Amino acid sequence: MKLYESPSPNARRVHIFMAEKGIECERIAVDIRAAENLSAEYLAKNPGGRVPMLELEDGTFIGESVAICRYLESLQPESPLFGESGIEAAKVEMWQRRAELNFLLEVAGAFRNITGFFKDRETCVAEWGQVCAERAPKMLSMFDEQLSQTAYLAGDTFSIADITLAVALDFARMVKVVALPELPNIERWYGEVSARSSFGAN
Amino acid sequence: MKLYESPSPNARRVHIFMAEKGIECERIAVDIRAAENLSAEYLAKNPGGRVPMLELEDGTFIGESVAICRYLESLQPESPLFGESGIEAAKVEMWQRRAELNFLLEVAGAFRNITGFFKDRETCVAEWGQVCAERAPKMLSMFDEQLSQTAYLAGDTFSIADITLAVALDFARMVKVVALPELPNIERWYGEVSARSSFGAN
Repeated sequence: MKLYESPSPNARRVHIFMAEKGIECERIAVDIRAAENLSAEYLAKNPGGRVPMLELEDGTFIGESVAICRYLESLQPESPLFGESGIEAAKVEMWQRRAELNFLLEVAGAFRNITGFFKDRETCVAEWGQVCAERAPKMLSMFDEQLSQTAYLAGDTFSIADITLAVALDFARMVKVVALPELPNIERWYGEVSARSSFGAN
Repeated sequence: MKLYESPSPNARRVHIFMAEKGIECERIAVDIRAAENLSAEYLAKNPGGRVPMLELEDGTFIGESVAICRYLESLQPESPLFGESGIEAAKVEMWQRRAELNFLLEVAGAFRNITGFFKDRETCVAEWGQVCAERAPKMLSMFDEQLSQTAYLAGDTFSIADITLAVALDFARMVKVVALPELPNIERWYGEVSARSSFGAN
């Protein structure tokens, strides 16, 4: 099994997930600044041109971080990170999607459109970046409210939703395009999840 | 079990999924034009303010269409629409995400920002709408290429990924903000999936 990757919040999500599961595999660096992910060779493996991507022993390529994590969960189902019962799985999916669509993607939208990081390959609209930068922090109160009632985002158990939100917060702090409010329940929760040994994985 | 909903591509995804599973439930109309989904009462149930939302018998509320579908799959696991083996589940997740993130969300971004449909409650940036409108059709060649090799998006079996892409295509045709190329494999596949009786569900 080989993980094709480049430093990014998505790679970090997969690293943390692998560490939680005690799974290791060969890593292959993809230089996205040099657009290696857009080469014909890479696109034949992963037509979206995204990283990370997982190559399985049978030659199957799995793109999309969450799809990679779901495959890893099937290899090592113990301590489930996608929920176990139908209702748990639905709650994890709900909070994972909220963390990703309503926060991580907004931070990424702000970063890409404000800084023009990928302006050699995409049209950037600074005004849209500002819209994303204003929306992202507003969504945090939803997570803070949830974390005033539960230990982790999807309930009593640590899940992929926590990985996504914590990684997104670290990314937001690093790229500095979004003003992050201090929210007490997120702070309590972030202290706990970021202290897990998996969060040091790289 | 009650489904709170308003006419939208997301509601349609859930309707088709329910019809595929032979599941019925009470429906409650939410008037999103009148911002009923942003009322304190609704937000207490679903803090994202999104529709559709599923209320379970035990009073749990599940937001996010894909989370609702995942719960429905747990009620009726036969003819799985999220894959069965680990590798199938990963492939469904990968293609479902591509259909949603790379196409449905782009069409929605074009629609909302170009038409200003929700301008009473969100900042619209027409230039960003154009970026989305240009990106969305380009992604269709990825799906067409996949469908030249497989019967359905994620392989030999119909899945939620097919529901998402077909509903997104219908939405794109309806809102007319995205120019859709004619692609032979998508056409063959669309003819097949849209002929399923579940696609008439509403």
